[in-house]
Amino acid sequence: MSAMQVTVDAERLGQELAHLATYSDCKPPGVTRVLFTECDRRARGYLRRLCSDAGLKVREDAIGNLFARWPGTHPELGAVGSGSHIDAIPHAGRYDGTVGVLGALEAMRALRSAGFQPRRSIELLMFTSEEPTRFGVGCVGSRSLCGSLSADDLCRLRDADDHWFDHVRREAGCHGELSSVRLPDGYYSAFVELHIEQGPRLEAAGVPIGVVTAIAAPAALRVVIDGRGGHAGGVLMPDRRDALCTAAEAILAVEAAARGSGSPDTVATTGGCRVYPNAVNSIPSRVVLEIDIRDVNRESRDRAVAAIRSAVAAIAQRRNCTAVVEILHSDPPAAMAPAVVAAIESACRMLQLNCQRMVSRAYHDSLFMAQRFPTGMIFIPCRRGVSHHPDEFAEPEAIRRGVEVLAQTLAELAT
Amino acid sequence: MSAMQVTVDAERLGQELAHLATYSDCKPPGVTRVLFTECDRRARGYLRRLCSDAGLKVREDAIGNLFARWPGTHPELGAVGSGSHIDAIPHAGRYDGTVGVLGALEAMRALRSAGFQPRRSIELLMFTSEEPTRFGVGCVGSRSLCGSLSADDLCRLRDADDHWFDHVRREAGCHGELSSVRLPDGYYSAFVELHIEQGPRLEAAGVPIGVVTAIAAPAALRVVIDGRGGHAGGVLMPDRRDALCTAAEAILAVEAAARGSGSPDTVATTGGCRVYPNAVNSIPSRVVLEIDIRDVNRESRDRAVAAIRSAVAAIAQRRNCTAVVEILHSDPPAAMAPAVVAAIESACRMLQLNCQRMVSRAYHDSLFMAQRFPTGMIFIPCRRGVSHHPDEFAEPEAIRRGVEVLAQTLAELAT
Repeated sequence: MSAMQVTVDAERLGQELAHLATYSDCKPPGVTRVLFTECDRRARGYLRRLCSDAGLKVREDAIGNLFARWPGTHPELGAVGSGSHIDAIPHAGRYDGTVGVLGALEAMRALRSAGFQPRRSIELLMFTSEEPTRFGVGCVGSRSLCGSLSADDLCRLRDADDHWFDHVRREAGCHGELSSVRLPDGYYSAFVELHIEQGPRLEAAGVPIGVVTAIAAPAALRVVIDGRGGHAGGVLMPDRRDALCTAAEAILAVEAAARGSGSPDTVATTGGCRVYPNAVNSIPSRVVLEIDIRDVNRESRDRAVAAIRSAVAAIAQRRNCTAVVEILHSDPPAAMAPAVVAAIESACRMLQLNCQRMVSRAYHDSLFMAQRFPTGMIFIPCRRGVSHHPDEFAEPEAIRRGVEVLAQTLAELAT
Repeated sequence: MSAMQVTVDAERLGQELAHLATYSDCKPPGVTRVLFTECDRRARGYLRRLCSDAGLKVREDAIGNLFARWPGTHPELGAVGSGSHIDAIPHAGRYDGTVGVLGALEAMRALRSAGFQPRRSIELLMFTSEEPTRFGVGCVGSRSLCGSLSADDLCRLRDADDHWFDHVRREAGCHGELSSVRLPDGYYSAFVELHIEQGPRLEAAGVPIGVVTAIAAPAALRVVIDGRGGHAGGVLMPDRRDALCTAAEAILAVEAAARGSGSPDTVATTGGCRVYPNAVNSIPSRVVLEIDIRDVNRESRDRAVAAIRSAVAAIAQRRNCTAVVEILHSDPPAAMAPAVVAAIESACRMLQLNCQRMVSRAYHDSLFMAQRFPTGMIFIPCRRGVSHHPDEFAEPEAIRRGVEVLAQTLAELAT
């Protein structure tokens, strides 16, 4: 097909992104939007209204995944899906995920305004809880849709305040059987996710569009270190079993494991660290670490995980503490579907936009969608590669180009 | 004077301690009672009622220090004071501080029941916020009473939620001028604090009473480490400026500084560690550490502080982060008054109880009271020396003996 005359309303999209950012539990420009908190629920309401206003048919499943459908002339065919997430880790930015949700909506509006009538239905999909903030596991929505998280698994999820996932989702107004969430085979003929790169490569290369070919294999560990608390004045140094000193050595071992994995692509991060009782005059009795490890290559990722486990055990033993390591998740890498990659590259050619193939070290809902449906991702540059931070920023022009490529890709896949 | 027939009602005191422990923001047996929270305010109300029921005249000053007076036959003379605190760090126990408050009340009731009539007034004093949990500085009440914390200093205190001390104390119903808190010279002729040891020495020696001769010099630092955040998947290891890895090295340097101070008495503890944004898939951009350093010897304490400062600066520079070190407080050690020490030892002799002189490495409100008034402390054993922990425990019999010694000491000092 040839390039359609599709006009993306970048100003409207920018206003919607800015308004969505006001549903937040921290000071602007930061955004904190944790699954099923009051502000997350209000943000979902805003998205539902936008979708209804656009004439889309909105439904939600039992865990809050939101679908908004533009029926095709052949609604019996598998649909073309596009979307991302709107939840945000504490003190994050306003572009991660949201560009792929509101961008997909804008792409659908622009295609309709251009007079396009799809053969296959096109469906916006907003995934529940891509971020692992609340329940310790990321991509709850897409894992469930694709069947890698079962109803039983969901029932075992519990947040830091001991609230069960099943209770929390019901309180948020999500009903229906958890077992109903998995999508039928063939539900999507293709899925495309638009996302900011969350890395510096596109900006550095001056290329407006990244075409993802694979998503790195992520894993996450939780380490619970128990020592012996006590009054900071009352216990002499040789008698201590300080959980935080043990944790400090473990944090450095995580860093060393990534640097020593044999692969320059391995990254390992101790992103979460909670100290108990966390009072200046009290020897820490317990520390809980949450560690993220990933690599495009599964073997070097697994070597780093193994190195961390054995280092933590040795450190804890030497310091007379206990350390229990739990694997929160450990996923394989995902290859993007050649047909979807080709459609994105074809859209770039038609729009005369430079693009480059790349691997995503950040994981996305597409990691799980790719297990069930032909999937691809479109990356746009973000300033200095900063993400998960209030300084996260994508140029309106960069977003506009990304949505144009998405619209063109959806049109091709839905024709 | 000879030993009076003073009968301490250990059962009633035990019940009052148990009831006070129910005013808490965590699961029993732990106690969390932070300054001017709802449960702290209710605990204060309980104490006021007990004091009124005992016929004492209760007053509160502008920051919530609570005084309950038994007038002597010569009320114009300096009073004999006794007391401690009832606030508790998160997940602490039920004996730290509370034994010295309810124990002083019980001592006064027992002396009155025994028919004793004091020449000097005897006054129970409950100090506001001995623990530094909320405003980062300990002994807010006693520092203010003794003039080492001015009204201006109090107005500069702010908690982690950006609430100012002056606002919080007014919300809690404390009115009056902050400048009115400092006690006049000679207000107390003597002050005695009963407290659990918070260390293992009395229990190990099988001695029921410790007579404190000095309190170690405490200092506290806050270190704010800033690195650069970002997505845990998006930034390769060589490009990172991870605030938590920097903090991990700093925590180990704190431990090393204590072990290397040249004094076996130096202790240094990183008790507080807060990580931002504290999400598993986000590189930590900021870490705030709170560090406690103390020693009976001021010089070795100061050497450890200096070693920590220079180590933190070097680590931060090497890791391309910034680290700002703030001294939260740095106090001299305090010597107890020989006359009060003698009165306590005399009380032990009269009651035929073994006692031993000792230094307190934990600091107490008496550290500041000693700057203005002749001060002493009575220690009782606590199980395994555990304190600031739900397992904190003192035998009812140990508490009874401590209150007997306190009553006898107050009688001698008030005669």
